[in-house]
Amino acid sequence: MPSVNSEILARLWAIIPAGGAGTRLWPLSRAAHPKFLHDLTGSGRTLLQATADRLSPLVGQQLLVVTGAAHAAAVRRQLPELNAAQILAEPSPRDSMAAIAWAAAVVERNQPDALVASFAADHVITGEDNFAACVAEAAEVADTGLIVTIGIAPTGPATGFGYLEAGDPIGGFPTARLLRQFVEKPDLATATDYVASGDFQWNAGMFVSRASVLLDQLAEEHPELAAGARALAVNPDALHEIWPGLLKIAIDHAVAEPAAAQARVAMVPGTFGWDDIGDFDFLAGLLDEVDRARVVGDREQVLVADGSAVVVGAGPRMIAVVGLDDVVVVDTGDALLVTTRAAAQDVKGVVDQLRAQGRTDLL
Amino acid sequence: MPSVNSEILARLWAIIPAGGAGTRLWPLSRAAHPKFLHDLTGSGRTLLQATADRLSPLVGQQLLVVTGAAHAAAVRRQLPELNAAQILAEPSPRDSMAAIAWAAAVVERNQPDALVASFAADHVITGEDNFAACVAEAAEVADTGLIVTIGIAPTGPATGFGYLEAGDPIGGFPTARLLRQFVEKPDLATATDYVASGDFQWNAGMFVSRASVLLDQLAEEHPELAAGARALAVNPDALHEIWPGLLKIAIDHAVAEPAAAQARVAMVPGTFGWDDIGDFDFLAGLLDEVDRARVVGDREQVLVADGSAVVVGAGPRMIAVVGLDDVVVVDTGDALLVTTRAAAQDVKGVVDQLRAQGRTDLL
Repeated sequence: MPSVNSEILARLWAIIPAGGAGTRLWPLSRAAHPKFLHDLTGSGRTLLQATADRLSPLVGQQLLVVTGAAHAAAVRRQLPELNAAQILAEPSPRDSMAAIAWAAAVVERNQPDALVASFAADHVITGEDNFAACVAEAAEVADTGLIVTIGIAPTGPATGFGYLEAGDPIGGFPTARLLRQFVEKPDLATATDYVASGDFQWNAGMFVSRASVLLDQLAEEHPELAAGARALAVNPDALHEIWPGLLKIAIDHAVAEPAAAQARVAMVPGTFGWDDIGDFDFLAGLLDEVDRARVVGDREQVLVADGSAVVVGAGPRMIAVVGLDDVVVVDTGDALLVTTRAAAQDVKGVVDQLRAQGRTDLL
Repeated sequence: MPSVNSEILARLWAIIPAGGAGTRLWPLSRAAHPKFLHDLTGSGRTLLQATADRLSPLVGQQLLVVTGAAHAAAVRRQLPELNAAQILAEPSPRDSMAAIAWAAAVVERNQPDALVASFAADHVITGEDNFAACVAEAAEVADTGLIVTIGIAPTGPATGFGYLEAGDPIGGFPTARLLRQFVEKPDLATATDYVASGDFQWNAGMFVSRASVLLDQLAEEHPELAAGARALAVNPDALHEIWPGLLKIAIDHAVAEPAAAQARVAMVPGTFGWDDIGDFDFLAGLLDEVDRARVVGDREQVLVADGSAVVVGAGPRMIAVVGLDDVVVVDTGDALLVTTRAAAQDVKGVVDQLRAQGRTDLL
């Protein structure tokens, strides 16, 4: 752990919005058992657990998970250290702003000067000390009243992510800069320019702010949503009346972009490794290749006689590959996927077809 | 059924040597459950059962199966119409001549003027009426004292089979010709010449002869093998003494080639469809393609979102393919193979590797 302002960290709460279907990770990721509940990398901890593990040195027990009602029990099983009040179960999906605002309002009511930091439940991060240092700096910047986003150092000119454009440095902090703007997913030429400039990082939706600043900013744009979230914090029993009326909007559009336009957003450049494992090609990139196979599961149950393979869910069945390069085999009890790393993005097409066929048992 | 000489057919016995590992059909074909015990084509009957079905209109109950002791029980289950004496269980593999000679000697002892016709247990034949007509003509020719082989009309210049070169027609029979020679697997240029000439057919090891002619011919070349087979027929209890001493040799080398050199072999040109399903590419060729999938098993449990697939053993698991052409997926309980039609011949390499790893549980 780097040295940090412990008084500020004592007021820091983590929020983990745990949602997202992960259809490009079918058949591993299912509606009833989405991506964040899986140990995708074979680390022994699920993505949700790894997210909580990573935050606990920073926030101790001060952590809230917001998830769909269908997944609350699974979250409780995976994070037994949380008490019931720390798992907020959404009656229906209402996008990221409602989820984060609800949690921020709960924190604010509990501790009016608290800070909140929100991180998706299904991202993979390496370099935990660097991550902690970034969050600690972001918290110090946020304590001044700014909304702070943590960038991701780009590893290439990706066109699948939005970007954060950094502006002037903020005096008194080692790395923080004002955020000039959020930019949408660029084309390749633009992305290449972004990365070359050194002023752009990927937007992974990591936000740190005072709970009250976030909710007040939201109140300027969408007062009924901020009021609804705060009402929920006062009266949890009103969940099923209040929730369905909340506006469905992403935090970027609801709060971050308007605040950036008012120069109220800072960016702390990320210095840690990050991956959102969008598909099996990304997942493969995280696995070591041994004897032409990258394996999640029992390596002894994979045999590549000729070619190369990525096998997810290896064992108990022996999986043998002959004469295919970069083939991806995902074996689950009731479904088996065979594809390639290059076609990994098209796996969504299977989910679409299964839905069209009414095979909800497999979704 | 074509019209045939019923007096001759009444003396005709079928012999089915049921052996062969089929390693290129792993994981379907296993040492403990070889190719002939499988319903490879999804017809509802195993290859062994289909072979017996095909012969029964010709020979009625006059049928013997020679198989490894390990498979005798499975053969009995698959062919419940056979009595115990009709299944000859080899204590160890001794190649085709010992197997066929044993069965021929049993037939000869039972009926000295009987004819025997031997057919592998794992071939696929279409056009059963044409097949029956060929066997009937072969039996009539064989009754004159010749050893008769039934050719396979080539569908192309295959280099994986031996060929039969036809000589002069034999008077009094519709299609039979003397056999000029057996020729080994040719190179492509030679095979192309063979097929163009019209005088060559594939050798599928189908032989028809009087039992006594076969054994007497064998006695000329390998007297101890013929004597051993005849001794077994007289005294079945001596099986475990006699069998291990029998010469290990293929019927082609032991009998057919020497007899051909003496102009004692005839050929009836086959007019039926034939396949030996040597690998999954051959198997795929027998299956209809529906929505880019060729399936053995439950078609509803296969989904090709993009590309094309051959799936063997479909169901109960859903198998989805994305972005691969001509991929082959073979799903069994304890093993799964992923390959391509083009690489199907290399599947043997998996079996070799598993053997090297001591994974006899999967062989």
